[in-house]
Amino acid sequence: MKKAGILGGGQLGRMLLQAAANYPVETFIMEKEDTVPAANLCKNFIKGDITKFEDVYAFGKNLDIVTIEIENVNIDALEKLADEGVTIIPHPSALRIIQNKISQKQFYQEHQIPTSPFVITQSSSELKNHSEFLPAVHKLGTGGYDGKGVQIINNEHDFSKAFNEPAVLEKKISIKQEISIIIAVAQNGQTAVYPPVDMVFDNDLNLLNYQICPAQINEIIFYKAEAIAISAVKHLKSAGLFAVELFTDAEDNVWINEIAPRVHNSGHHSIEGNYCSQFDMMWRILLDYPLGNTDLIMPSALVNIVGADNYEGEAIYDGLEEVLTMNNAFVHIYGKSLTKPGRKMGHITLLSKDMQELLYKANQVKHKLTVKSKS
Amino acid sequence: MKKAGILGGGQLGRMLLQAAANYPVETFIMEKEDTVPAANLCKNFIKGDITKFEDVYAFGKNLDIVTIEIENVNIDALEKLADEGVTIIPHPSALRIIQNKISQKQFYQEHQIPTSPFVITQSSSELKNHSEFLPAVHKLGTGGYDGKGVQIINNEHDFSKAFNEPAVLEKKISIKQEISIIIAVAQNGQTAVYPPVDMVFDNDLNLLNYQICPAQINEIIFYKAEAIAISAVKHLKSAGLFAVELFTDAEDNVWINEIAPRVHNSGHHSIEGNYCSQFDMMWRILLDYPLGNTDLIMPSALVNIVGADNYEGEAIYDGLEEVLTMNNAFVHIYGKSLTKPGRKMGHITLLSKDMQELLYKANQVKHKLTVKSKS
Repeated sequence: MKKAGILGGGQLGRMLLQAAANYPVETFIMEKEDTVPAANLCKNFIKGDITKFEDVYAFGKNLDIVTIEIENVNIDALEKLADEGVTIIPHPSALRIIQNKISQKQFYQEHQIPTSPFVITQSSSELKNHSEFLPAVHKLGTGGYDGKGVQIINNEHDFSKAFNEPAVLEKKISIKQEISIIIAVAQNGQTAVYPPVDMVFDNDLNLLNYQICPAQINEIIFYKAEAIAISAVKHLKSAGLFAVELFTDAEDNVWINEIAPRVHNSGHHSIEGNYCSQFDMMWRILLDYPLGNTDLIMPSALVNIVGADNYEGEAIYDGLEEVLTMNNAFVHIYGKSLTKPGRKMGHITLLSKDMQELLYKANQVKHKLTVKSKS
Repeated sequence: MKKAGILGGGQLGRMLLQAAANYPVETFIMEKEDTVPAANLCKNFIKGDITKFEDVYAFGKNLDIVTIEIENVNIDALEKLADEGVTIIPHPSALRIIQNKISQKQFYQEHQIPTSPFVITQSSSELKNHSEFLPAVHKLGTGGYDGKGVQIINNEHDFSKAFNEPAVLEKKISIKQEISIIIAVAQNGQTAVYPPVDMVFDNDLNLLNYQICPAQINEIIFYKAEAIAISAVKHLKSAGLFAVELFTDAEDNVWINEIAPRVHNSGHHSIEGNYCSQFDMMWRILLDYPLGNTDLIMPSALVNIVGADNYEGEAIYDGLEEVLTMNNAFVHIYGKSLTKPGRKMGHITLLSKDMQELLYKANQVKHKLTVKSKS
C-alpha cells in the first residue's frame, strides 16, 4: 500500500482524509498542533513545522507521495525529496511560482495570460512613483493568506497602509464577477475541467460569502475563462489540482487573479454537486489513477459557516437543525473546537435545479445559522 | 460537542466515520484489535470486547450516544446505559429481537408480517420430526453471520449438517428475487424510505455478488415490499437505520427474510447513488437532525470486492486502474491489509441511467478486478 503525506492539517486536509479512506493508501499528516481539523482522522499524525526544511524532509523521506493543503510550505525540502524519487504533487517548481505573488504575476506576463497591470515594489516608499496605478491593490509577495497581506490603495492617503517588503501593486479592475475554475492534471498530463463557479465575497473579511455553480456567465466569458485557466495551468507543467480564480469586467474581459495549487474552497460544493468531488479527484491524481467525471449532478450553492462577531470560545452551531430541514442541504463542520469572529468553521452545500431556489436557500442559511460560543 | 461511540470497527464503522467528520460530533470506536478498518480514522480508539458487559458499559458510560455496526454486542450493557440516560440507537429492545433469529421469526409471526413457515428446534435430533418442512434452511439462533450459521437441509441425508443448538428451521421458498429496503427512523419517529435494491448472491460464499438500484420489480411487488418493510420496522419501536431483506417468489408473493438494524451492504451504493447516503442518514438520526433525501441521483450497481481464491497475504488490487477508467465508477477499499479467499475487501459503485450499461459495467468489474496478494 502506498504511503501518502499531506503537509498541513486544516479543513482541506480533513476532507482529503475523508476521501482517502476509499483508496488503497496509508495517509500521514504533518502540522504544528494535534488539535487541528485533520488530526482526528489520521492515526499517522506527525507534529512538525511545514515551513521548516528539516521537518518537511524528515516527514517525506519515507513516503511515496507528498502533497500540500496550504502553499506556505518549505519548497527546498520538497525539491530534495523529488530529487530522491518521492512523488511531489504539485511539483515544487509550480509551487515556487505560485508561493510568491511577484513570481506568479511575472509567470502570467511571460506566458501572455491576461492579468491586471502591475508593478513590483520593494518598499512602501516606491508607491509614490506609481500614482498612475491608483486605485490599486497592494499584495505582499509572500506570507499573505485569507485576506491578510492585501491592502487597497485608493489614493496617496492610503500609502501608509502599503507593505514595506517585496510586493505587487496591481491596478484595481472594476470587477463584475469573480469566478473560479478547478482543473485536474493527471500524472500523465491528461486534464479534466470542473464547471466554473461564481464567487461572492464578504468585503470586510475578504472571505468567500457564498458561491454558485455553474457560474451565471455568458458563453463568451465561459470560453475565455476556460481557455485562460487551462493555458495557465498547463504552463505550470505539473500534475495536481488547481483552482484558477478569475475576474470579469463590464466589457466581458476576463483576467486571471491567482492560482491555488490544491483543493480549494471554491470546489467544496463538488462533494455533493459533482460526480467526482475535488477531494476524490485529488486522490486519483496522487495515486496515478484515471481522472474522474467533473460533470454537475445538479446546480449548487455553497455558504461558508464563519464564526459570528462577539463570540469566542467553544463553538455552538445555532440553527443547524433548521438548515438541515431544507431538502438537499448538506453540512460540513470542520471540527475546530474554538470559534472566533470570522473563522471558517464549516460550510453548507445546497442543491437545486432552480437557481432562484438556490439563492433563496443560501440566504436562509446565512440568516438562520450562527456560530456562537458557550462562554 | 456530543460524544458518539460505535461498537465494532469494520468497514461499516469506517464509512460511518467518514460521514461523521461532516457533523459536530466527537467519535469513539471499540474493537478488539487496532488494525481494523475503522481504527485509522478515529483518534479515540478503545480496545475492548463488544460482547462483554464490562467493556461495553465502560465504553458507553461517558458518551452521549452509542450505536453499533454489528449485531453481536452485549445488550445487557446497552440496556443499563439506556437506563442511565445514554441514547442507544437502535434501542436495545429492538436489538434483542433481531440478535436471535428465533425471536426475530417470532416477532414477524406475532405482528402478522409475511415470512416463510418455520419451526424452532433445540437440537439436531428434532429435525426428523419436521420432514414436512424439507427442503429447508436451518439457521442458528445466535452467532451466525456472513453465511456462517446457515445450513441447507434438502432431505434427511443433510440432517448431519443441522445445528445442535437452538435454531430455526425455515421452509425453503422458491426465491425469484432477493430485495432490500433501507428505512431510516428518526428519534421523533419520522421515517424515510430508500428505493429498493435487487441483490444477487454468490451461492458458494453466500456473500452479496452484485446489486442493482432501483430493483427491477413490478408495482405490485414494490408496494407489498414497502408495506412489509415499513410495518416490520415500525413494530420494532426504535430509532435507527434498518435494512429489511425480502424474498419474492414466482407468484409475486413477498416474504421478509431478516432485518439488519444498522447500515448495511445493500445500502453502500447510496454514497454516490442517493442524495443522502445511508451513512449520512445514520448521523442525522444519531444526532437528532432532520432526515435527509433518500431519492436516487441515478440508477446504480454495486460490486463487492472479495479476496480471490488461492491468495492470502498483503492485498493487491489488480485491475483497479482499469475499473476506474469507466465513467462514474467509484471505489471503496476498506483498508484491510490482509486478503484471504472470500474476504470482503471493498466495493465498487457504478452509476448509469441505462440498466444494460450498468449490468455490463458490473460484469466488467467482476472480470477485471482481482484481489491478489504479494506473497
